[in-house]
Amino acid sequence: MEELVKPLQELVDKFRTLEGVGKKSAMRMAFSILDMPDADAFAFAQAILDAKTNIGRCSVCQNISSDEVCPICSSSTRDHSVICVVEDYQAVLAIEKVKEYSGVYHVLHGTISPMKGIGPDQLKIKELLERINSENVQEVIIATNPTVSGEATAMYLSRLLKPCGVKVTRIANGLPVGADLEYADSVTLYRAIMGRHDI
Amino acid sequence: MEELVKPLQELVDKFRTLEGVGKKSAMRMAFSILDMPDADAFAFAQAILDAKTNIGRCSVCQNISSDEVCPICSSSTRDHSVICVVEDYQAVLAIEKVKEYSGVYHVLHGTISPMKGIGPDQLKIKELLERINSENVQEVIIATNPTVSGEATAMYLSRLLKPCGVKVTRIANGLPVGADLEYADSVTLYRAIMGRHDI
Repeated sequence: MEELVKPLQELVDKFRTLEGVGKKSAMRMAFSILDMPDADAFAFAQAILDAKTNIGRCSVCQNISSDEVCPICSSSTRDHSVICVVEDYQAVLAIEKVKEYSGVYHVLHGTISPMKGIGPDQLKIKELLERINSENVQEVIIATNPTVSGEATAMYLSRLLKPCGVKVTRIANGLPVGADLEYADSVTLYRAIMGRHDI
Repeated sequence: MEELVKPLQELVDKFRTLEGVGKKSAMRMAFSILDMPDADAFAFAQAILDAKTNIGRCSVCQNISSDEVCPICSSSTRDHSVICVVEDYQAVLAIEKVKEYSGVYHVLHGTISPMKGIGPDQLKIKELLERINSENVQEVIIATNPTVSGEATAMYLSRLLKPCGVKVTRIANGLPVGADLEYADSVTLYRAIMGRHDI
């Protein structure tokens, strides 16, 4: 009887398919399910179904949304002439948290990564070009992560978008607030120096 | 738009109810669900329902089981005169992994813990007494964890069971194999010395 009871083993296997969940965590979570009242477990299963059924993508910015057009794209108080291009929904949440950006977004759903077999066609770049051509867009801020694939995507986009006659900008690199120069990596420090400004 | 899309927020909240899952992990797992194909997500939900519906408790040893009597209790090759009393299902799995124990189990489903409001009545102690009185039990091995509540439970059980005329034993404390005396805590070391045996 070394193996788990079959329905439990199946539940553990399902938890293991989630990102960042190992064997021990999956087991602990499966036991949490067993220990919770039936109603809570059923509500959990329902929440999974609801999320999959009710969440789609905004037809404008491609962000995940439960509406045809997301609240940001349908808002009249946002500046629709500035589009911030990000990799994923989490990036939108992070920027929204700052409460300073009033433009709209465009979610690529990934970055160009030949290693993973992801080329420009797999990203929502076509939709971005359509928006630039049809809407009155003044500026595109490229806010992909400052990683190898994020930078490559930024480079690709800037070359693609500049001929469209829009201003293309990239978020700044530099030292995070509260950091110590002693511990900063040299690429970051180099970019912080190159990106210096008058005070 | 700082809040999450509602069905997503609800899914994140559900993941947070699982033991050991924090805000960031819950979010990451919810996104895994969104990213997986519909069929996989539906199978996930179904696995939760199946686990809750099909897993009950063995009527003899109280271990979780998908049958009325679990494979261990219904096995004719196990020694039914020796009962190993453990806190939970995970302990059964751990002992089974050793492949040396041939007796049967009794799962208490917790330990006596006045801090958490768990007294002997909330544990499967009544069922253990019934087994000792009705079956031909020779020895009860108390294998609750060597923690404060595990020790308290072991002490309680030994006082309760000794008058029943069965041999009551407790698993040994001592240094784990491969350990270093230098780093052993003094209680463990004390018990290792007190529990010394001839070689």
